[in-house]
Amino acid sequence: MKALVYHGPGQKAWEDVPDPAIQAPTDIIVRMDTTTICGTDLHILKGDVPAVTDGRILGHEGVGTITEVGAAVSTLAVGDRVIISCISACGACSYCHQGLYAHCLADEGASGIGWIFGHLIDGTQAEYVRVPFADNSVYKVPDGVSDEAAVMLSDILPTGFEIGVRYGRVKPGDVVAVVGAGPVRLAAIMTAGLYGAARIIAIDLDDNRLELARTFGASDGVNSGKPDFVDTVKAMTDGLGVDVAIEAVGIPATFETCLKLVRPGGTVANVGVHGKAVELPLQDLWIQDIAITMGLVSTSTTSMLLKLVAQHKLEAEKFATHHFTFDQVLDAYDTFGRAAETKALKVVISR
Amino acid sequence: MKALVYHGPGQKAWEDVPDPAIQAPTDIIVRMDTTTICGTDLHILKGDVPAVTDGRILGHEGVGTITEVGAAVSTLAVGDRVIISCISACGACSYCHQGLYAHCLADEGASGIGWIFGHLIDGTQAEYVRVPFADNSVYKVPDGVSDEAAVMLSDILPTGFEIGVRYGRVKPGDVVAVVGAGPVRLAAIMTAGLYGAARIIAIDLDDNRLELARTFGASDGVNSGKPDFVDTVKAMTDGLGVDVAIEAVGIPATFETCLKLVRPGGTVANVGVHGKAVELPLQDLWIQDIAITMGLVSTSTTSMLLKLVAQHKLEAEKFATHHFTFDQVLDAYDTFGRAAETKALKVVISR
Repeated sequence: MKALVYHGPGQKAWEDVPDPAIQAPTDIIVRMDTTTICGTDLHILKGDVPAVTDGRILGHEGVGTITEVGAAVSTLAVGDRVIISCISACGACSYCHQGLYAHCLADEGASGIGWIFGHLIDGTQAEYVRVPFADNSVYKVPDGVSDEAAVMLSDILPTGFEIGVRYGRVKPGDVVAVVGAGPVRLAAIMTAGLYGAARIIAIDLDDNRLELARTFGASDGVNSGKPDFVDTVKAMTDGLGVDVAIEAVGIPATFETCLKLVRPGGTVANVGVHGKAVELPLQDLWIQDIAITMGLVSTSTTSMLLKLVAQHKLEAEKFATHHFTFDQVLDAYDTFGRAAETKALKVVISR
Repeated sequence: MKALVYHGPGQKAWEDVPDPAIQAPTDIIVRMDTTTICGTDLHILKGDVPAVTDGRILGHEGVGTITEVGAAVSTLAVGDRVIISCISACGACSYCHQGLYAHCLADEGASGIGWIFGHLIDGTQAEYVRVPFADNSVYKVPDGVSDEAAVMLSDILPTGFEIGVRYGRVKPGDVVAVVGAGPVRLAAIMTAGLYGAARIIAIDLDDNRLELARTFGASDGVNSGKPDFVDTVKAMTDGLGVDVAIEAVGIPATFETCLKLVRPGGTVANVGVHGKAVELPLQDLWIQDIAITMGLVSTSTTSMLLKLVAQHKLEAEKFATHHFTFDQVLDAYDTFGRAAETKALKVVISR
């Protein structure tokens, strides 16, 4: 088959590789119908994730059709159309029993399971992929849900919802600020209303992206390039700050912005993937009764979100801005890598 | 009357001052029967809390007898024996409606209400004290509860419980580590069992204090002076770390210890009062699914804890290690200020 193979920092190729095969009785093989590219893939290509080594097939998102099932697979059959979750999980360990699949303790790949596709095992930017612990790691796609909607359930919708909205403890009537520019930020905005947020304030440096955020459910937009933007946001609350501030960038400046925006009793939910430490001003914060949360998505809400997508209550397909075929995957990377210019949110790559 | 008056850094005196008087119809006047000293009072005396100015009567804990009630006070009468909470609250603002009394928005003292005694208004280390918003800020002491037990409800028991145990989301079966040396640490240890903690590990540099922690409910003690103490703690769990790590010191090193001890999915509950920023290694933590909480006690659980004290389910009087009369208050400060040497936990000062 053909696959997108990583060959060290800055190096990738769409090339011939051996077909994947069942290795354990809990595996399935899936023919990929649709995949997409994540910001994490770009980080890997920069060399930021040294666990990814030369020869690894990239990608951790996708929708496909099962072509082979292992002997122990009980809920799936050849021909099933499934979403491949970015998180693989055994379903049987102590973390899985808590729904904390991101920290599954089973042994697959070099350092356990969780996020392994395109990281510790071969990923989904390929014509076929082997999926371990398949019963717990894929979701059947209902009729009427398109591939380009379903693929948003692999990672970004559950990430925005679980790590932003649920960890942020959004509750009815809350004012929620979402700081960031990318698609995960929009996933948090799209799902914040599920817990009854009264006001969802997008915060970004770019007015065009603020307008875009409104089409995903933001009630307001505030440009963080203006020196008084924190006061502007506080004026939209009762002057006390927001109930929940969601950080979806992964740099110290935006994390600090969230600490400034949140009110006593509120939550800063960090969704961003950070590359360095931040300074936590505990001398000011200890008295503020705030919680700071963070984490890797467990995709424990994928089934629920998929129902809402099937009912057209979440318009997941809105994230799909550009379309490519598998043999155009390098063009897809180019378009996604220049997102500021191309306005790409998610590039959809299909057979 | 006589009172302990602050006269700038390092300066205090037990001296004659005017008797307090009702200023608002929601005030009461209380004759102090028992008070105590908090680590915060020592910080003030070092000059660490510049909002406390020359002439301020110190102290925010105490038990006394009401001698006068304002015209609008509806639930209290002259002669009632009451616990004075370290937090004053109007009961009517948006924060009070959430039980977040620490952030009460009413205007009393220079910057709102909350912790004001011995800070923004005169405190409880005096023969008499004026208590604002009395209906919401004092608790009647049931018969059979001694002053020396009741005074622990002013601050340390609710602080350890609300900011350590409740913010830490302790749940049945949890392994809880409590890092620190002082009485608030012991209050967290004493109350962690209320939510069903399976194992409560005291962590301290001093073996004697570890032994003491066992008498307050710790199941284990680990000396943090040993280089492998984190591994020792992890070996007491399933190797994955503790469910809840409670920080009760207020310095970067102990906060960082808590970050090392907590497992994915767990909580670091910061109780310590910090004087400087800490480095938060988000590059390692973002993926860990932890929550970090912090706050000033709201004393919203004082009534509940008082019931448990009355039922002898919490032995609050165990914190009382030294006893003084009011005219010995300077000796009490000396004993408390040399706690490492005198083994003082709480010094009880009575009429």
